[in-house]
Amino acid sequence: MLPSLLFVLPVSLHRAAAHTLGRGVTGLPRRALLVSQAGGRASAAVTQASAEAKAKPSSMDLNPPRGTRDFYPGGEVGGMGLRSWLFEQWRTVAAQHGFEEYDAPVLETEELYVRKAGEDVTNQLYSLEDRSGRRLALRPEMTPSLARMVLARRGGLPLPLKWFSIPQCWRYERTTRGRRREHFQWNLDIWGVEELTAEAELLHAAVSFMRRVGLTSADVGIKVSTRAVLAELLSKIGLPNERFAETCVLIDKLDKLPEEEVRQALLQQGLSDDGVSTLLSTLKLVDFATLEEAMGADSPALTDLKKVFSLADAYGLSDWLVLDISVVRGLAYYTGVVFEGFDRSGELRAIFGGGRYDKLLSTFGGDDLPAAGFGFGDAVIMELLESKKLLPDLPTSMVDAVVFAMNDELLPQAMQLASTLRAAGRNVDMVLQPKKTKWIFKHADRLDAKFVVLLAPQEAEKGLVRVKNLGEGTQIDVEFASIVSAVPAQCS
Amino acid sequence: MLPSLLFVLPVSLHRAAAHTLGRGVTGLPRRALLVSQAGGRASAAVTQASAEAKAKPSSMDLNPPRGTRDFYPGGEVGGMGLRSWLFEQWRTVAAQHGFEEYDAPVLETEELYVRKAGEDVTNQLYSLEDRSGRRLALRPEMTPSLARMVLARRGGLPLPLKWFSIPQCWRYERTTRGRRREHFQWNLDIWGVEELTAEAELLHAAVSFMRRVGLTSADVGIKVSTRAVLAELLSKIGLPNERFAETCVLIDKLDKLPEEEVRQALLQQGLSDDGVSTLLSTLKLVDFATLEEAMGADSPALTDLKKVFSLADAYGLSDWLVLDISVVRGLAYYTGVVFEGFDRSGELRAIFGGGRYDKLLSTFGGDDLPAAGFGFGDAVIMELLESKKLLPDLPTSMVDAVVFAMNDELLPQAMQLASTLRAAGRNVDMVLQPKKTKWIFKHADRLDAKFVVLLAPQEAEKGLVRVKNLGEGTQIDVEFASIVSAVPAQCS
Repeated sequence: MLPSLLFVLPVSLHRAAAHTLGRGVTGLPRRALLVSQAGGRASAAVTQASAEAKAKPSSMDLNPPRGTRDFYPGGEVGGMGLRSWLFEQWRTVAAQHGFEEYDAPVLETEELYVRKAGEDVTNQLYSLEDRSGRRLALRPEMTPSLARMVLARRGGLPLPLKWFSIPQCWRYERTTRGRRREHFQWNLDIWGVEELTAEAELLHAAVSFMRRVGLTSADVGIKVSTRAVLAELLSKIGLPNERFAETCVLIDKLDKLPEEEVRQALLQQGLSDDGVSTLLSTLKLVDFATLEEAMGADSPALTDLKKVFSLADAYGLSDWLVLDISVVRGLAYYTGVVFEGFDRSGELRAIFGGGRYDKLLSTFGGDDLPAAGFGFGDAVIMELLESKKLLPDLPTSMVDAVVFAMNDELLPQAMQLASTLRAAGRNVDMVLQPKKTKWIFKHADRLDAKFVVLLAPQEAEKGLVRVKNLGEGTQIDVEFASIVSAVPAQCS
Repeated sequence: MLPSLLFVLPVSLHRAAAHTLGRGVTGLPRRALLVSQAGGRASAAVTQASAEAKAKPSSMDLNPPRGTRDFYPGGEVGGMGLRSWLFEQWRTVAAQHGFEEYDAPVLETEELYVRKAGEDVTNQLYSLEDRSGRRLALRPEMTPSLARMVLARRGGLPLPLKWFSIPQCWRYERTTRGRRREHFQWNLDIWGVEELTAEAELLHAAVSFMRRVGLTSADVGIKVSTRAVLAELLSKIGLPNERFAETCVLIDKLDKLPEEEVRQALLQQGLSDDGVSTLLSTLKLVDFATLEEAMGADSPALTDLKKVFSLADAYGLSDWLVLDISVVRGLAYYTGVVFEGFDRSGELRAIFGGGRYDKLLSTFGGDDLPAAGFGFGDAVIMELLESKKLLPDLPTSMVDAVVFAMNDELLPQAMQLASTLRAAGRNVDMVLQPKKTKWIFKHADRLDAKFVVLLAPQEAEKGLVRVKNLGEGTQIDVEFASIVSAVPAQCS
């Protein structure tokens, strides 16, 4: 069954723990939880920022809208530095797996998301009507935009497609308990491959990323199932085919709602009491042997599922995979294999999730095309990396050198030097104000700059500029023309 | 005066030409213009995409919402490859100038944008009410979010700040003539520097970017003025101080509306007929000598403006700068120097724009802090680079090697090899389906991959794998264990 963490949290947080954005999952950081519990209505972000804002009275709320984040420069947790670092890891791993980047507007027509299966995604849209009366919505997930793009150029695109994107996704949640209303989500998708190799390839990419950032299969597991197992089970117990997607969405709620509540909902789908009991007990089986007993050794669904495990084994992923047929994922469009990355310590919610969705294009009026993909949110993974002390220690800035004129007359010459260094590819912070030398060195230190380039009157008269190497504690006076070689780039 | 191009376009396009998003400017590509003129109500993007969509009947509109763009993978114009390339140039130049990246939510409280000066930016918001009744809006520009962030941590941030961002900005326009409703905008801002060196630094960054992508001062000029000149002029002709910001927004419309219309609006601000005539004629002066005659040699505004030109000269920017006091920019919050990059051939609208806004924080209820910045949209610059044939020829993909198994039994071994190569940092496209060898080479060719790694039965039996170097037309058989050295990364 799904992780036990959900049942050790306070009852009032069950829904918070169930919050997923599209196929991936937004973070519910431990810290945010604590803050929320303490702070009542205030979200984590709000509480954090308002402490800083309190010093200065203001007529305007200085926080980002509830549930959203500002990204300040620098390497601290929640800052832009780590976000850029994460995106860079995602882009690198995507490239290593041959995926190409795409993007679509964050604002789409609302129609793209309106489905009938009772998914949270449809109920929690940020919608608006534009001035010409069109219904638009901020994307809650990327897959519908991707499907639209594929369908729009269907025929002109060489298959298979291996595409990725890092969209920001939006979802309006009623609760104010520290839940986020936006997150960034690494989306990898393969179109045009009906073979289960597509699923194996996706799992390999997810694991490659986790290995790259220092996680092991002792930290993270990936639950794998296929909706075909559910389809066989549900068909056996008499569920009409047209209720399948909707019923999957219900079953997905088993990790968020009390089992009894889900049981009642399943009964309302027309299932018998015995049928529901069979379903719920079978969902708890965790190995192929007992599953074969329950479903028959000739079950095509089980054969497929075994194949996924064997392909993943060839890719060296066995340690990461866990058989768990209770995994269904909350989106109605999945048709086959589904999977979900989870924190083995049971502290956090799902890390990523995805699966096969071979029938999505026909819901948009097109011919279907086999497809599989996953979404991997930025929040839970950052929380996990922080708890495992795997976040990188980023440099404060990328500045190589601080350039400074001792007086106003020397400013033009200093600016020329800064310009020369920049044209040569150096990262230069030009000091724009009259400052004391002490400030300059403190400033250079804060920026982690290796050099201070100092224009002083006596040296400048001789056509010389002073270059201090802060790392080595040395200094040299060089001619203006030699400035570039005196200030090598830090990264080279 | 502003570029003559506006007056050679059809009258119906005047408003299109006037379209600016925040401080920067969205593109009005020549091609889009032509398409729009031909296509009537359809925007360029719509027309383009629907041609492709027509082949397949669909119940859903496959285009992105009117005025927005999809970014497909690949290096073609309008694609994701060139967008990523542009962003990389922007980030590199920002780093060379010591700017640090930040970000804020694309969705902000509407209040952040509601000002009284009659700016288009306020009238063209994408607004929505969330489910708890909050008024929110998609950001039309980045500066208000930045000001909010600075104010929220005022006191905790070491000054000066040099921050940059590449936000997507949104603006609802009624017209359907190929105008975009979103664009990405490189924003550079300096906070805490009252000296004009801040403006010089910003201009240097903008020029560094343009030089980096191959543009020269023969291609692009930068009109520079200061609103202080206007303030002196307007004060002389009797405008009350509190009407200054609003009047600036009016004067900015001189390049978009007939002069007579602006004249009438100025008269309604309470100016005399003679006053307006003096103003309009002075705005046409283009050199410091005649300006001094008109405004007095002791004009503090002119002294400042000369200082900007002299600092820019020290930075080697003289060839790029043009004195033009009719430049005011359309945003009410500018208080000092304003500038605007323009295409010297007169074909395109403004390339970027910005200036000083020392009084913005007090409008949010905080203490003011000197600030200056600019916004540089992605659309016009791409159009300019395309017309100058300066767009880079990007590789089709970043794939180093295509890995392929000749039959299903060899697939696990091929997957192991792909996994090994990826773990070693290679970009590998694993072929996931049974394909003919001919297809593999065509596919590798399309991806610009240098190597094909081929698992064939006979070689595999001997523990060998075939590595074809497509660039050199050679092939070798290597042991599985030697695969990494046989496939060097393309970029190294």
